[in-house]
Amino acid sequence: MFYNNNVPQWSAFELSFKVQNLPEKPFDTMFKGVFQKDNRKMTAFGFYDGDNVYKLRFMPDSMGGWEYETISELPELSGKSGQFTCISPVEGNHGVARVKGRHFAYDDGKPLYPLGTTAYAWIHQPETMRRQTLESLKNTPGFKKIRMCVFPKHYQFNNNEPELFAFEGNLKDGFDYTTPNPRFYGLLEECIQDLHKIGMEADLILFHFYDHWGFANMDEACNHRYLKYITARLSCFPNIWWSLANEYDLLRHLTEQDWDGFARVIQEGDYANHLMSIHNCYGFYNHDKPWITHCSIQRQDVYRTTEYTNEWIAKWQKPATLDEIGYEGDIDWGWGNLTAEELMRRSWEAFVRGGYPGHGETYVSEDEVLWWSKGGILKGQSPARYNFLMKIAEEAGGIDYLPERSPWDIPVGGIENKVYIAYFGFSRPKFRAFHSDHPYLGRSNFPEGNYKVEIIDTWNMTITDCGVMAREDLYVDLPGKQYMAVRFTQQ
Amino acid sequence: MFYNNNVPQWSAFELSFKVQNLPEKPFDTMFKGVFQKDNRKMTAFGFYDGDNVYKLRFMPDSMGGWEYETISELPELSGKSGQFTCISPVEGNHGVARVKGRHFAYDDGKPLYPLGTTAYAWIHQPETMRRQTLESLKNTPGFKKIRMCVFPKHYQFNNNEPELFAFEGNLKDGFDYTTPNPRFYGLLEECIQDLHKIGMEADLILFHFYDHWGFANMDEACNHRYLKYITARLSCFPNIWWSLANEYDLLRHLTEQDWDGFARVIQEGDYANHLMSIHNCYGFYNHDKPWITHCSIQRQDVYRTTEYTNEWIAKWQKPATLDEIGYEGDIDWGWGNLTAEELMRRSWEAFVRGGYPGHGETYVSEDEVLWWSKGGILKGQSPARYNFLMKIAEEAGGIDYLPERSPWDIPVGGIENKVYIAYFGFSRPKFRAFHSDHPYLGRSNFPEGNYKVEIIDTWNMTITDCGVMAREDLYVDLPGKQYMAVRFTQQ
Repeated sequence: MFYNNNVPQWSAFELSFKVQNLPEKPFDTMFKGVFQKDNRKMTAFGFYDGDNVYKLRFMPDSMGGWEYETISELPELSGKSGQFTCISPVEGNHGVARVKGRHFAYDDGKPLYPLGTTAYAWIHQPETMRRQTLESLKNTPGFKKIRMCVFPKHYQFNNNEPELFAFEGNLKDGFDYTTPNPRFYGLLEECIQDLHKIGMEADLILFHFYDHWGFANMDEACNHRYLKYITARLSCFPNIWWSLANEYDLLRHLTEQDWDGFARVIQEGDYANHLMSIHNCYGFYNHDKPWITHCSIQRQDVYRTTEYTNEWIAKWQKPATLDEIGYEGDIDWGWGNLTAEELMRRSWEAFVRGGYPGHGETYVSEDEVLWWSKGGILKGQSPARYNFLMKIAEEAGGIDYLPERSPWDIPVGGIENKVYIAYFGFSRPKFRAFHSDHPYLGRSNFPEGNYKVEIIDTWNMTITDCGVMAREDLYVDLPGKQYMAVRFTQQ
Repeated sequence: MFYNNNVPQWSAFELSFKVQNLPEKPFDTMFKGVFQKDNRKMTAFGFYDGDNVYKLRFMPDSMGGWEYETISELPELSGKSGQFTCISPVEGNHGVARVKGRHFAYDDGKPLYPLGTTAYAWIHQPETMRRQTLESLKNTPGFKKIRMCVFPKHYQFNNNEPELFAFEGNLKDGFDYTTPNPRFYGLLEECIQDLHKIGMEADLILFHFYDHWGFANMDEACNHRYLKYITARLSCFPNIWWSLANEYDLLRHLTEQDWDGFARVIQEGDYANHLMSIHNCYGFYNHDKPWITHCSIQRQDVYRTTEYTNEWIAKWQKPATLDEIGYEGDIDWGWGNLTAEELMRRSWEAFVRGGYPGHGETYVSEDEVLWWSKGGILKGQSPARYNFLMKIAEEAGGIDYLPERSPWDIPVGGIENKVYIAYFGFSRPKFRAFHSDHPYLGRSNFPEGNYKVEIIDTWNMTITDCGVMAREDLYVDLPGKQYMAVRFTQQ
């Protein structure tokens, strides 16, 4: 939904101009608007939407009166000015997700715990399946972010062609990479807005390698034009995250200079400064780059995965989303045949180490509908446990890994003097002492005080109250089963 | 059992001398024997066994006539000469375990796959429990080696005092670290011989940290005297392995020079050159040292453990026994509360990567009898699976990790042009292609030819024949369960 006046904060204002004298290359027309409130000016780029229509969109981030004026090489688009009022936001719209310390929060201050999922090509599936996907997401409040691609996916289990492409053309005759397809973008925007309605962030993957249409091999001019166009269209949506690539390093023809250049184009177009990341296959991109707002990480090691989360956060001093840690499923690939137990173990390891894990599902299916790519219906056991993890995350409120509170064999995350969560993972002790004078276990002492102690069975999703204990008495009888956590809340 | 003539090959020859005029410090008497066959001379040290008796032991490694002559500062012990015949070995005695390539074999050439277990203080328990331990070991042919300490153990779950100590004295009044206790050594020797009868190697730990008797803090002279004495007594046993320490680096007062010095004392006394190793807690000892015959490894990382096995073997170019990879159990410590599934997963990872894993068991028990330390009765699910793994090892015959045959997500071990074993661990695919033209999986191609294909369910201990396939057809339907391996035997 687009507004023309009385624009709710963080919703999209849109101007539309029907042009009589269309230039030869209408998508290349220079067209922008300067938006001003008080002494603050922001520039948004307009775009050609087909059928002789140009549009200019803007997301106001502050309530009150805004003025605008357009600039264009096309006389019919230039010098248009006006004003609108930005009113209080629509319920459920908290603004754009931002980095806050090593965590995330929306513009309005509400914390965001971006536990996520992955359905790369869900927008490229038929409408009934897209509806299913949205319904599945709506029923899984444990997912707050979805990784999804602009371009369709050609890969194992992904052999169907989409109806619409980001560019004019088709597989048989080829594509015109200089001519965007506004109908495709209309669909994409609808999907992004549908996600926003159910509180989901769209972690939008701009480039990827799984291609037979040529989108992975466009030249630099086409790549930049594409990024400028998509930024002009989508920056008005609060729930967009820019993910420059999935597995950037599989696109071997692109260099660091190329990626930095892409980031620059996006930054020029995106006045709202949405989150931006780049996701690896083999080695990590240099996450020290200022344009990278957070670490979007694929685990590198087959065996030790999210147990590195705290090291990554410490190294780059940025929050981390774990955007491929293996998926629940049973396909042939090692990344796609984990048990739900193992995916949840990795997810909890990420969580207590201060990161935000991501889910995926890859069960062999005759219809080739695997959630990880096409969406549809969730079949696995992890989503319910992501809901449970979200509840724990919301109750705790953005925990960090606490090395000084962690014994060698158990990671402890928490917020000092508030809450500590120890996660046992594959270990299954019958008991554990957490007091400081234990002769062997060491370094699990918490600050002086009394603690409410609870055993969290992360697999069976139960919380058992063990009562309140003084620090020096902290000793917990455990059930001798895997996937337990203990939560200590200071009283 | 000791022989005096007609000594079977690799059995113990023993001379005994009752001395009238005992010197003041009989344990310090210089006494040795030179044993000669053809032009080969070997020197064995004698020792004082108490009650005015000195003994000289020797293990002949070659059949035929041997001559000997004694040398001593004590006239009654010097210049004694004689001869004996070494005859064919007792059934089941294959000689001393040696390094052979990156694996092990006995003197007679029989391969040894030293899958092992751990019962540090089993010899320090009452006789009935020692009998239980031996019975348990006898019933577990999957264990061919046991880690065990000379000194008793003082630690959690280890609060009982032994009947006999390696030195004269007691806890209350203190010990005389210059005076060995021959009665204790008699017991130790009986235990070692009992192990040999059931085909077990004694991986004898000479120093350790879990002490309140002072054995961990003796001075250098005492340490050397102790090592000389034990070497003189035990080198005649074919199934001895010298393990200089368990967790050498917890003995912080000992330096690399000290350990190298200990190795030298052992090498001087041990004419039979038994295997020798040193086991770590934190960092590895420098395994490049020539006196270290094989890598005796405690995993360093909590999460990625035996998956490093092939790297360790490649780095030090020596075989590896994985002498602490975590134990099946449910105690508080992270190393002692693994499920049997996880211990077996680590064990199989070690195996397909060319190493020899070790078992341990630490179930909480009211009587404080935990197998890992005291032995007794095995309660867990791993031992049966070690038997199964031994069967697979014996059928394969000393496999190495094959990086060029291993896809990124599955380790493949084997013997080129004979057998390949792919291990899926926690992965649980429904199918897998192993032919070389698979578009994504890569590098799992085997040499040209036909292969007998079998699915090994390492947990349920079943082997399912999938028939014979040509290399280019290698595709396996799998059950979608964890802990599967596939064995490809070239036809």
